[in-house]
Amino acid sequence: MKMKNPPVNSLSLELLTEFSIGLEKLEIDRGCRGLILTSVRDPIFSAGLDITEMCGKSAEHYAAFWRAVQEMWLKLFGSNMVIIAAVNGSSPAGGCLMALCCDYRIMADSPKYSIGLNETQLGIVAPFWFKDTMTHIVGSRVTEQSLQLGQMYPAPAALKIGLVDQLVPEDKVQSTAATVMAQWLSVPDHARQITKSMIRKPIIDRLVKQREADINNFVSFISKESIQKSLLVYMERLRQKKQ
Amino acid sequence: MKMKNPPVNSLSLELLTEFSIGLEKLEIDRGCRGLILTSVRDPIFSAGLDITEMCGKSAEHYAAFWRAVQEMWLKLFGSNMVIIAAVNGSSPAGGCLMALCCDYRIMADSPKYSIGLNETQLGIVAPFWFKDTMTHIVGSRVTEQSLQLGQMYPAPAALKIGLVDQLVPEDKVQSTAATVMAQWLSVPDHARQITKSMIRKPIIDRLVKQREADINNFVSFISKESIQKSLLVYMERLRQKKQ
Amino acid sequence: MKMKNPPVNSLSLELLTEFSIGLEKLEIDRGCRGLILTSVRDPIFSAGLDITEMCGKSAEHYAAFWRAVQEMWLKLFGSNMVIIAAVNGSSPAGGCLMALCCDYRIMADSPKYSIGLNETQLGIVAPFWFKDTMTHIVGSRVTEQSLQLGQMYPAPAALKIGLVDQLVPEDKVQSTAATVMAQWLSVPDHARQITKSMIRKPIIDRLVKQREADINNFVSFISKESIQKSLLVYMERLRQKKQ
Repeated sequence: MKMKNPPVNSLSLELLTEFSIGLEKLEIDRGCRGLILTSVRDPIFSAGLDITEMCGKSAEHYAAFWRAVQEMWLKLFGSNMVIIAAVNGSSPAGGCLMALCCDYRIMADSPKYSIGLNETQLGIVAPFWFKDTMTHIVGSRVTEQSLQLGQMYPAPAALKIGLVDQLVPEDKVQSTAATVMAQWLSVPDHARQITKSMIRKPIIDRLVKQREADINNFVSFISKESIQKSLLVYMERLRQKKQ
Repeated sequence: MKMKNPPVNSLSLELLTEFSIGLEKLEIDRGCRGLILTSVRDPIFSAGLDITEMCGKSAEHYAAFWRAVQEMWLKLFGSNMVIIAAVNGSSPAGGCLMALCCDYRIMADSPKYSIGLNETQLGIVAPFWFKDTMTHIVGSRVTEQSLQLGQMYPAPAALKIGLVDQLVPEDKVQSTAATVMAQWLSVPDHARQITKSMIRKPIIDRLVKQREADINNFVSFISKESIQKSLLVYMERLRQKKQ
Repeated sequence: MKMKNPPVNSLSLELLTEFSIGLEKLEIDRGCRGLILTSVRDPIFSAGLDITEMCGKSAEHYAAFWRAVQEMWLKLFGSNMVIIAAVNGSSPAGGCLMALCCDYRIMADSPKYSIGLNETQLGIVAPFWFKDTMTHIVGSRVTEQSLQLGQMYPAPAALKIGLVDQLVPEDKVQSTAATVMAQWLSVPDHARQITKSMIRKPIIDRLVKQREADINNFVSFISKESIQKSLLVYMERLRQKKQ
């Protein structure tokens, strides 16, 4: 019932594809009713989408990458299983999105870890279904301000606005996730699944209906010279930080 | 301006029908501008839908019962009057729904009383219009988690998430409701009514448009052998609790 | 980057028209990326719509006035700029609406200042796009109760329900607004603008689609003898208060 996302520094095309296939397998496995989403690398839950997949590649590559991001979201947000996020590190952009897709979010209680959809800080834009997912969790005022500012929230601030549901000491994240999972699994599966699907289906249908348009939109945006330049600047800054 | 729901242990087909007719009469009575919804039996505000109406009956009976539940909701949520809930006891499932339909909810400040839509705990599912009503009051994150878990909230927790608006000592519930009612009735009726109807009409229209489909959906769900079995198990558990 | 609304006691047809033209000019001026909305008259941020424009005038006048109110909202809520409200005084009705259209609201921390959509107290009704704007900021439960009651919130209460984002001492409102503006302007414009527009466009489109119907609706409502009488009573009360 647990899954560990290997190094998970970034969600590459390969990792996203593996993730979706893995999730689909668990979905049809009747023995698996719940999943704890966590990272084996402590300081980072997930660094989000792999920027190298969005830089200096062909339009075909961008399209394939974006389809994989959509697929991951469709599978994760639309899952019938109970999915608990054990957020044991920072979780920007795509990492935050994954946490938001879960049924419940537990985060390590440390101000050094933060979470948020910070796309605008990189000069890019979270698409409408990222926005819909965040609005579903924290409402429209907080979502609008967060997305415009590309704001990252330290754990205590994330709890306050409802971006995560619970903070626990870092070494209790996994055990708390297991306890919470037991509570969720005590509810009859069929009633819980119908309820979850009734609530999420309208949000999922919005992307399903305009999936190709959303891909075209991403490809034409990311192919712009100005966007490419701003991503390169961002990556250069990251590289210098590491040194 | 007050109404007392007789024993209100459970919302039977008969009680629901009486309730809707009574509400309709008050609605057209120009002398009645507001209503305080409360229970004469203290430990329970309303036990919700009568499970015996959903067990071992004919498809026709299930359909008639569900239509009566819809009718109650349409009348109560769509009322032009000011309706204040004086929640003087526990309020699961249908009882919680009735409180959520009111304009303002006052609850007895006691952790022994709780309120919530706990349908999944019985193996059944709150329909989309129960969900819409709850989302209207507490937003989509809390609604999704509550409905999946079938969670009952003790009074203090209910206040915290906004499921009720105010807690007062048990013996002050009625007098507070009267004070709040006076405040609401000080607003010019026509302006308040247009405002209320503008906000609630889209939510009401969703059920009106798919009323028959919703009945068919309920009948086919509740007629399933597995659902009938799980309701019998639940009723047996209740019976043993009482002894 | 700052704009001061002259006496701003009330939003007259003339002031609304000037405001929309001024905003449009700034919108196409590439040098202007942000705007701080404030009042030069301290005790009042804006008194809201000018009631004299709604009393004893012709149907043509009401229609022209309402079109100007719509235009102000379309321009302000739909602006590409960062707009910060520096609420340095009370802000009822139309004044509250203007603040709600901004990206962020800073209010003077004084219980003597209050803010809210208090239309029903005057016997009139906030139209659906006022309601949509408020729901966008504080959610549907608070909006429904506020609009029905025509409730004004003193600054601390306004912060609590999220109607404003931050309270600061009265003499710090402007400097705080400047600091917040600097933070918002540090985000790449194109990414922030696309994000803002993605979120607000569906809300704006609702009015665009039914603009003429909304005008007709306003004109027929405000022309009613009973509404005219109730506005005259309200103005008389205001006049007596001032003496």
